[in-house]
Amino acid sequence: MEHLSVTNAQKCILESVIKLDTETVRLEQSLGRVLAEDVRANRDQPPYDVSAMDGYALRSADLANVPATLAIIEDIKAGDMPTRIVLAGQCARIMTGAPVPEGADAVIRVEDTMAVSNNSVQINRTVKPGNDIRSLGENMRNGEIVLTSGTEITPGVIGILATVKRARLQVYRRPRVAVLSTGNELEDMDEPVDPNKIPNSNSYALMAQVQALGIEPALLGIARDDPAELAEYLQRGLKFDVLLVSGGSSVGVHDYVRPTMEALGVRMLFWRVAMKPGHPLAFGIKTSPASTNAVEAHAVQDAFVFGLPGNPVSSMVCFEQFVAPALRSMMGHPRLYRRTLAARLTHNIKHQPGRTEFIRVTLAKQEGGYAATSTGTQSSGVSLSMAKADGLLVVSSASNGLAAGEQVIVQLLDGTVFQDDVGFKE
Amino acid sequence: MEHLSVTNAQKCILESVIKLDTETVRLEQSLGRVLAEDVRANRDQPPYDVSAMDGYALRSADLANVPATLAIIEDIKAGDMPTRIVLAGQCARIMTGAPVPEGADAVIRVEDTMAVSNNSVQINRTVKPGNDIRSLGENMRNGEIVLTSGTEITPGVIGILATVKRARLQVYRRPRVAVLSTGNELEDMDEPVDPNKIPNSNSYALMAQVQALGIEPALLGIARDDPAELAEYLQRGLKFDVLLVSGGSSVGVHDYVRPTMEALGVRMLFWRVAMKPGHPLAFGIKTSPASTNAVEAHAVQDAFVFGLPGNPVSSMVCFEQFVAPALRSMMGHPRLYRRTLAARLTHNIKHQPGRTEFIRVTLAKQEGGYAATSTGTQSSGVSLSMAKADGLLVVSSASNGLAAGEQVIVQLLDGTVFQDDVGFKE
Repeated sequence: MEHLSVTNAQKCILESVIKLDTETVRLEQSLGRVLAEDVRANRDQPPYDVSAMDGYALRSADLANVPATLAIIEDIKAGDMPTRIVLAGQCARIMTGAPVPEGADAVIRVEDTMAVSNNSVQINRTVKPGNDIRSLGENMRNGEIVLTSGTEITPGVIGILATVKRARLQVYRRPRVAVLSTGNELEDMDEPVDPNKIPNSNSYALMAQVQALGIEPALLGIARDDPAELAEYLQRGLKFDVLLVSGGSSVGVHDYVRPTMEALGVRMLFWRVAMKPGHPLAFGIKTSPASTNAVEAHAVQDAFVFGLPGNPVSSMVCFEQFVAPALRSMMGHPRLYRRTLAARLTHNIKHQPGRTEFIRVTLAKQEGGYAATSTGTQSSGVSLSMAKADGLLVVSSASNGLAAGEQVIVQLLDGTVFQDDVGFKE
Repeated sequence: MEHLSVTNAQKCILESVIKLDTETVRLEQSLGRVLAEDVRANRDQPPYDVSAMDGYALRSADLANVPATLAIIEDIKAGDMPTRIVLAGQCARIMTGAPVPEGADAVIRVEDTMAVSNNSVQINRTVKPGNDIRSLGENMRNGEIVLTSGTEITPGVIGILATVKRARLQVYRRPRVAVLSTGNELEDMDEPVDPNKIPNSNSYALMAQVQALGIEPALLGIARDDPAELAEYLQRGLKFDVLLVSGGSSVGVHDYVRPTMEALGVRMLFWRVAMKPGHPLAFGIKTSPASTNAVEAHAVQDAFVFGLPGNPVSSMVCFEQFVAPALRSMMGHPRLYRRTLAARLTHNIKHQPGRTEFIRVTLAKQEGGYAATSTGTQSSGVSLSMAKADGLLVVSSASNGLAAGEQVIVQLLDGTVFQDDVGFKE
């Protein structure tokens, strides 16, 4: 089997996985989930013309000559209803969000006025009709769809859901994800330090990558290089929606994972991708027999298996390219891929055509954009560089190398949602 | 009191808040927290020269003429130790991560070889000394500091923490945050729809903004416009590290919040910022009397109070500019501000000098960068635009307007960590 390109491998994965079933969650627990229903407004909002400012509701025609002094006929707070009509020469003191009284066609904010007495105010500037009035239904009309199925629930969306008073909502279920490491060389967290062994960092890094997507994974532990033990672990893992297996999918003679998976009914779709770091990467499906028991619906879902490289950096890079888009797709997210941005390269990078390469880089602000600099050695054994990286610079498989000053594309990693400085000029 | 600029207000806030005390968390619960200790390596990693590939460990000098056939003297798996020295004309079959045997100075990957028999292999290309070998301590040296206090715990950092087997770690505590809404006009989630009232969306949107920072806030509910009731709610809120009060901090006659806070011992540092949307914004400190009881240390922390605008959009925009940096600073984060990027404006924007304006925009990819387009009406009553926005375009307070095609700065909002397309060419 030849090596798939990164995007063909992504395509193969995304064509295989499906959106999961839906569930009801409380509004307070819905951040980051994806709506699985259209949401409609339950009222006109605002329900009538309201003031956008603390100030005075008045007739704009009364300000033909300013300053003008108007009689205050009423005091309208948010939550009150006006009781009087504003006539020529009159105004009402009004608070932000309070209904504009009949007769008034504009609001002037308090800062543009001067108190004359308790019953009159001097207005210092003219306003156009409609000034600082939010008109009926400006935000939403009763019955209209305000949010469509497939919308990611951000804080702004939660504001809308609260506005239409949806205490509970339908969202796509999160995949149940299991993380398994394999290999005799691995030493687990609770084992004493043995210099001849390698600490099992992959399970924990993968767990964190899954958590960063809003999913709490199950850590299955370490399966040793024994076909029977491995089969037992894999069988447990295949009961989840997604099983991440780190290590053991290579072409090496001691790798049992692939044959054991195939013996358990996992159909492997590919196991080689033309990328660096990242070799080997496998993807397979365990199709469950159809069940007539709708109650056990989630038990009849297919299980998707990712065989990730045993190397910590390769494992993390592959997760970002293949597993994260798959998990987000299953959760119904419209946006599957890591945010990218353009940056200027600060140094040359060697590359021979053949594989798409992901270079760990840090980003620095510079005039009009970003500068990208390699974290240093790109040996996939240097996991510290993954901890220091802001992003992954993507080198095209066709590239013969990149030169200092070239514009490059960088995929942003976790930790870059915020930055050191405010980033704008006031 | 005059209006503070946005950055002066940020400065005032960030000079007032302090990093909170520290606590111990389990590795599995540490994602997104900030290290409050330096972390050292507990071994050399790798502990010896190891193979970076599945292949053959050999003497590079033996490949002066290729193809060359070498005798396989041993089979070294990861987790095994070599038992024989590789002599001229010999090699050892070796797995990724396995120790390189004495005598060998390079590894060649299995793809560049051809099996001759069980005991010999044909090598098809030359390699340099050190090829595909990860040298002793390449990733980390026993005892060296690998992560410093103040590092944000990303998945890559968790990989390192697992590598040095830190099951528990010291991190800065998260602030305890309370959210309070005020106003007679507000209708809570569990109340029936009253067209004359305004749904209390602010508490829920603010809660989600706090949650997005990894903090689970307490919702205190709605305090009505009654000084005694308000004082009761505020007193409850001032027991938290941070109290967010939405609504009621304006100059309007019906606003009790500021005087009530001052009566409760809150020293108001400012209550006006020259920004749009955003008026009014207040910040104050309730200094706690020093206590000699160290056990109750968290109870003697100062309480920080933010008076946020009652308008939903203004409230969310102010949260991003002022509250988020403060909360992140208290948690020890080195990066306090929302990521910004440069974009091309697709249309003109009117602006009069005076206030810094935050315009809700959507972003679209275009050649070499992003295009920014306003979500439409910027009335702060249109909260739907906040749900649709990818970011906030920042218009300088000195600006006389922006023209289509100009480069502008956009602050990225939640939901933009991922994008629609892969964003790079293979």
